[in-house]
Amino acid sequence: MSLLASERLRFPPATRRLRLGFVGGGRGALVGEAHAAGARLSNRWEVVAGALSSDPATAVASGADWLLPADRIYTSWAEMAEREATRPDGIEAVVIVTPNHSHKAIAACFLEHGIDVICDKPLTTTVEDALALVDLQRRTGLVFGVTYCYASHAMIRQARAMVQAGELGRVRHIHVEYMQEWATTPDDVSQKALTWRRDPAKVGRASATNDIGTHAHHIAGFVSGLTMTRVRAEFHVCGAPKAMEDTAFMHVRYDDEVPGTLWVTQAAPGNHCALRLRVYGEKAGLEWDQEYPELLRFTPLGKPAQQITKGYGSGMLPAAERLVRLSRGHPEALTDAWANLYLELAVAVEARRTGQRLPEGLLAYPDVAAGARGVRFVHAAAESHEAGGAWTSCAL
Amino acid sequence: MSLLASERLRFPPATRRLRLGFVGGGRGALVGEAHAAGARLSNRWEVVAGALSSDPATAVASGADWLLPADRIYTSWAEMAEREATRPDGIEAVVIVTPNHSHKAIAACFLEHGIDVICDKPLTTTVEDALALVDLQRRTGLVFGVTYCYASHAMIRQARAMVQAGELGRVRHIHVEYMQEWATTPDDVSQKALTWRRDPAKVGRASATNDIGTHAHHIAGFVSGLTMTRVRAEFHVCGAPKAMEDTAFMHVRYDDEVPGTLWVTQAAPGNHCALRLRVYGEKAGLEWDQEYPELLRFTPLGKPAQQITKGYGSGMLPAAERLVRLSRGHPEALTDAWANLYLELAVAVEARRTGQRLPEGLLAYPDVAAGARGVRFVHAAAESHEAGGAWTSCAL
Amino acid sequence: MSLLASERLRFPPATRRLRLGFVGGGRGALVGEAHAAGARLSNRWEVVAGALSSDPATAVASGADWLLPADRIYTSWAEMAEREATRPDGIEAVVIVTPNHSHKAIAACFLEHGIDVICDKPLTTTVEDALALVDLQRRTGLVFGVTYCYASHAMIRQARAMVQAGELGRVRHIHVEYMQEWATTPDDVSQKALTWRRDPAKVGRASATNDIGTHAHHIAGFVSGLTMTRVRAEFHVCGAPKAMEDTAFMHVRYDDEVPGTLWVTQAAPGNHCALRLRVYGEKAGLEWDQEYPELLRFTPLGKPAQQITKGYGSGMLPAAERLVRLSRGHPEALTDAWANLYLELAVAVEARRTGQRLPEGLLAYPDVAAGARGVRFVHAAAESHEAGGAWTSCAL
Amino acid sequence: MSLLASERLRFPPATRRLRLGFVGGGRGALVGEAHAAGARLSNRWEVVAGALSSDPATAVASGADWLLPADRIYTSWAEMAEREATRPDGIEAVVIVTPNHSHKAIAACFLEHGIDVICDKPLTTTVEDALALVDLQRRTGLVFGVTYCYASHAMIRQARAMVQAGELGRVRHIHVEYMQEWATTPDDVSQKALTWRRDPAKVGRASATNDIGTHAHHIAGFVSGLTMTRVRAEFHVCGAPKAMEDTAFMHVRYDDEVPGTLWVTQAAPGNHCALRLRVYGEKAGLEWDQEYPELLRFTPLGKPAQQITKGYGSGMLPAAERLVRLSRGHPEALTDAWANLYLELAVAVEARRTGQRLPEGLLAYPDVAAGARGVRFVHAAAESHEAGGAWTSCAL
Repeated sequence: MSLLASERLRFPPATRRLRLGFVGGGRGALVGEAHAAGARLSNRWEVVAGALSSDPATAVASGADWLLPADRIYTSWAEMAEREATRPDGIEAVVIVTPNHSHKAIAACFLEHGIDVICDKPLTTTVEDALALVDLQRRTGLVFGVTYCYASHAMIRQARAMVQAGELGRVRHIHVEYMQEWATTPDDVSQKALTWRRDPAKVGRASATNDIGTHAHHIAGFVSGLTMTRVRAEFHVCGAPKAMEDTAFMHVRYDDEVPGTLWVTQAAPGNHCALRLRVYGEKAGLEWDQEYPELLRFTPLGKPAQQITKGYGSGMLPAAERLVRLSRGHPEALTDAWANLYLELAVAVEARRTGQRLPEGLLAYPDVAAGARGVRFVHAAAESHEAGGAWTSCAL
Repeated sequence: MSLLASERLRFPPATRRLRLGFVGGGRGALVGEAHAAGARLSNRWEVVAGALSSDPATAVASGADWLLPADRIYTSWAEMAEREATRPDGIEAVVIVTPNHSHKAIAACFLEHGIDVICDKPLTTTVEDALALVDLQRRTGLVFGVTYCYASHAMIRQARAMVQAGELGRVRHIHVEYMQEWATTPDDVSQKALTWRRDPAKVGRASATNDIGTHAHHIAGFVSGLTMTRVRAEFHVCGAPKAMEDTAFMHVRYDDEVPGTLWVTQAAPGNHCALRLRVYGEKAGLEWDQEYPELLRFTPLGKPAQQITKGYGSGMLPAAERLVRLSRGHPEALTDAWANLYLELAVAVEARRTGQRLPEGLLAYPDVAAGARGVRFVHAAAESHEAGGAWTSCAL
Repeated sequence: MSLLASERLRFPPATRRLRLGFVGGGRGALVGEAHAAGARLSNRWEVVAGALSSDPATAVASGADWLLPADRIYTSWAEMAEREATRPDGIEAVVIVTPNHSHKAIAACFLEHGIDVICDKPLTTTVEDALALVDLQRRTGLVFGVTYCYASHAMIRQARAMVQAGELGRVRHIHVEYMQEWATTPDDVSQKALTWRRDPAKVGRASATNDIGTHAHHIAGFVSGLTMTRVRAEFHVCGAPKAMEDTAFMHVRYDDEVPGTLWVTQAAPGNHCALRLRVYGEKAGLEWDQEYPELLRFTPLGKPAQQITKGYGSGMLPAAERLVRLSRGHPEALTDAWANLYLELAVAVEARRTGQRLPEGLLAYPDVAAGARGVRFVHAAAESHEAGGAWTSCAL
Repeated sequence: MSLLASERLRFPPATRRLRLGFVGGGRGALVGEAHAAGARLSNRWEVVAGALSSDPATAVASGADWLLPADRIYTSWAEMAEREATRPDGIEAVVIVTPNHSHKAIAACFLEHGIDVICDKPLTTTVEDALALVDLQRRTGLVFGVTYCYASHAMIRQARAMVQAGELGRVRHIHVEYMQEWATTPDDVSQKALTWRRDPAKVGRASATNDIGTHAHHIAGFVSGLTMTRVRAEFHVCGAPKAMEDTAFMHVRYDDEVPGTLWVTQAAPGNHCALRLRVYGEKAGLEWDQEYPELLRFTPLGKPAQQITKGYGSGMLPAAERLVRLSRGHPEALTDAWANLYLELAVAVEARRTGQRLPEGLLAYPDVAAGARGVRFVHAAAESHEAGGAWTSCAL
């Protein structure tokens, strides 16, 4: 395997923990705890402030749960941005884990206060908002990560590095799917974290496509190194009746007219977070399943299928190996991926703040542009569906 | 589980072996030996005659390989039909395993000579030919099986019986794929059995769609109990350059507008005969993979996933159990499915010839109508592809 | 991989089917049908005579089931041996699938009538009987196969060929286990095929050790190329109370003091025929599971684990490939192994009868000596158990 | 399933993070980082002090890596114990991750300074030392955890709870194995963390038995609820030549004479940390593999095998569910188990220090007595081996 010099790089060691604040993620939320766990496990961050809920009482109770200092538990993110920006020990980055429609305003506010941003996916509910954030990030030069968490699994980095190293030859077709089961039955309306996902005002033009389709879209492009160019989509409700789609089927094209399929459903009994990627090239294939994140199946044409595993001498490439946290045979899983993501974000934030120049190719966290491409994908899929499955461009 | 009375039925015992002839299947052919193996293993047939190749020398050499009596090794199927029809010990059924375009004439000839027909899939290369055979079968009243072999796996029968018994509730979406790798590299032009598959004159309007797509189409309908009504398709060449498609992606609809996906490729390194079916209903899902034919995964919503296995008391239904050949833990595979298919065909032929009336629901072998639906599916897919992916009806 | 010239050999083609008779295997028996299925599928044998049960009525009814000619359905094996030996179209080999204690007399009788013998395992219930048969086979020069069926899986031959070719380096330890569940509950006394397995008069000094331990013993030696030299064993009843052991644990030694473990149980809920072999050498390991007979896992030290599959160019060695029946991706299973075994036995019998000299290494079916080693193993295990787990020699 | 009231309990919320110190675990060490990661992820601890190496330069460099305050980076654990015991903000617990032979003195010293102890396994190198620590813990009343990390996987807790709830009926046999590959080749003598494992002065009477056998011993007893009473063992060197065993085979007995097997090897190519447990009872079996820690296979006799998964309504019991960190389908792995362990230890330490009485059955972390039983097991195995495999008691 030919290796780029940059792949051999290691991350610079930490000299201190960076200060992190959260907007959203309090009691009843789904994903905030996963972010916080990744940040803690990375050992590069300290969570010191939060506006953990739009409901003041929940915000305060959640801040106590998280052991935040009382004076840094906020009930308003705008106030938090302002106060933290002026404290000498103010937060250096903010994590935004609120419903989709609020991302734009919150992210813009923190960027304008000079605070680096880590925003959950999807970036925004409109393409305009997404482009505005891309623009604002460019103008401010701040770090802006979008947390497509699965892309930070060591084995996804391995898959990407193998494609880059030419192990597959030219990529010829790409298949990605993401299946869940929870929308088979009627949504539990008492669960705030679920209900906004079916409200067009909060989630944008699509539901399952937004929620899990953006993950599928991102990981396929991330591993293959190809950008999705157009899509033809159809939306369905396959589970209990509901206001927005719980299922979407798509045929897609990537750069160079490489074809693929992408489909998502939240109404497939027996599937929990079955994000599965398959990339086939002229010389070999790669297959990966989020529920078994350490099993990377590599199938060189006409040879026995291989299971790539962690560790030296077993086929793992340096770009992946530098994210390995445990010795071979000791399994890593989703929190390790989150920790990898928060590690890279910390390296980026610290480098920006200290004016350090990082080697090309050291970091691969998804940025605001990746976030904007995801939003455009969602809109292209919705437009295609509404146009009876017409081919629709994903170009920004 | 509620069981139809007929499901408890057993097959009538054999009183003798039926006499079987082959057209095609000699040296260099791919599938003839699989048919013959199934017939032998079923212990209901004796292969006694053959026109095993269109090439006379090959026909004779192959007849010797198969230990056929010299006077029943033919070099012309028409001659074989005529002579066998008049012998007192003439064949009772013929197996047709020649290139697709010749099926129609051969099948018609044997039907007209009063010989029951077992024809490989796809039935014909044109819809007109398919309908002509449907018509001829109706007029003659002869048995006409089409060998979608995978549908005779005990576990596929189990899956079908579970759907029928309501274990899944209403079926809500269906996904089927069939992946191979052999067309990643240029086709081996020395292999006659492969090359006609890329010749439109011999294979009809599609290649991979014909070859493996018809299997995917059949099994999805067979298990779900639903008929595919329309399709939107795109054809691709993902492997080495070639004259016809090696890959096809489709969105489909079944009865009651149930949506699904169907795709096939012969250019996915690491996949050999990866025919995978997934059916999801209101209450549960079923997942099956041809390469592991005894693993039927059943996923009742909100309960642990189950692995249904062969044998009494383990969840297997009678309609499937009557096809079980080996005790639990002793794996069955493709030849067992072929033997099940040839067992059911023998029961049908013997019943027809003896005037025996079989109980409703005892047999489930694919018939000429199933064959014709497959041909229509191929043409609908090709038409849709040529029309830029327009929705195209699969109705006959 | 270095290949012996003999490994490239193919089997000589058949010129006719050999005539086969059965002793045992009628209605209510367990294994006769598996033998017959293998013989049929091999296409080298015709079953033409049988004494299918010691009960005359069952023998007659079973003969009809098997479509035997009425005059060759016997109620006495002795009579069958005598009559068949004198018919011009008499059987050329006999299959013995009766309870263990009767093997010796039956096998000796047929050998003495000049009829080749195919005997189910274990060969006999006493070591003396086993040695007598070894001796008689040597004196008569007849073919004597013992049907350790699992050793004829193509992937087991592949494993053996890989060890022989040095792919593992020196073998350093060997682990084999065979787990079933049926003896967790009390034995069904209405099932004749089960009850004699717990009767010391019919089964010899051990029960589970005889029934499934002999398979484990054979396959470990067959693949590793090493002979088991001694054993320390303990017998247990882990399922419902019963007269003989349903479970046995052993530590063993092979040639060159290579250590290993071997254990069997018939009281492990969820396991049906879980015969699993693991062989570890200096350079690599091999792992195989009877329930998934096509998955041969090969683990070269410090490299990705490989899944060896059927077919050209995928790592399969000629000695295994000549037993492959179906194209890659089309799974084979137990009946295919039986057919491989009956194929090799037919080649051996035909060669003996025609005076043909077969190339060294062409055939690898288990012979009477392998059967005798199995009987000695059972007795060594029983002796060790009775001596409180003392090391006991397996030498004949 | 019948549930004990205590199983429904949740952990008390944290009010602050406890202060933790480390002895050992610096650069070049193997397991310290895993402990620290678990502590961080639990969010109940802050690592504030350390004597991370016996080499002063390494201790200082490692302290900087860990971002410890300069005045709390120690080069002597004795000095650390003394100073920390007197600081008002001194550590509340110490983690001991040094070579085995030093555990006793270090643990005793911290206990005597009133600091709770978290000690890696095996507890000590002699039974006397182990009993001395048991005694000292009893006298001081301090918390003493021994970090058998695997026992804190949610699915191991589930397995244990299912046994306790009677899902298996009476346990009838138990099989546990732990396989690695790294000792197939000569040990890398430059790796300090490996070499002391082959030095009897540092590791005690056994090597692999100590290192991984203690894990196997613990988890089998933990899940089954049975105590191992005696063992017969044989030690081997199956990999490259070395001073102590890399492989051990054992037959064992638990309470009520329940039999089992236990074996470990560090010379099985292709196996990394293959700790596999199988427990079979009268009514069902349970199977678990450390490399796939979320796959708990449950096999009720005569019913389809089930895969128990995380989450409500899918068969998970409260005692396991309270340790679940991520939603269903989002995999957890080893660091999650470590975090569970450090969570329970924090709850224990905080309760002790605040005089809080915890409900019976809330915590299940392994204590000093479990550690002592592990040491006794190692010695019993070594004694048995030296006595030619004689049965040897494991009683303390």
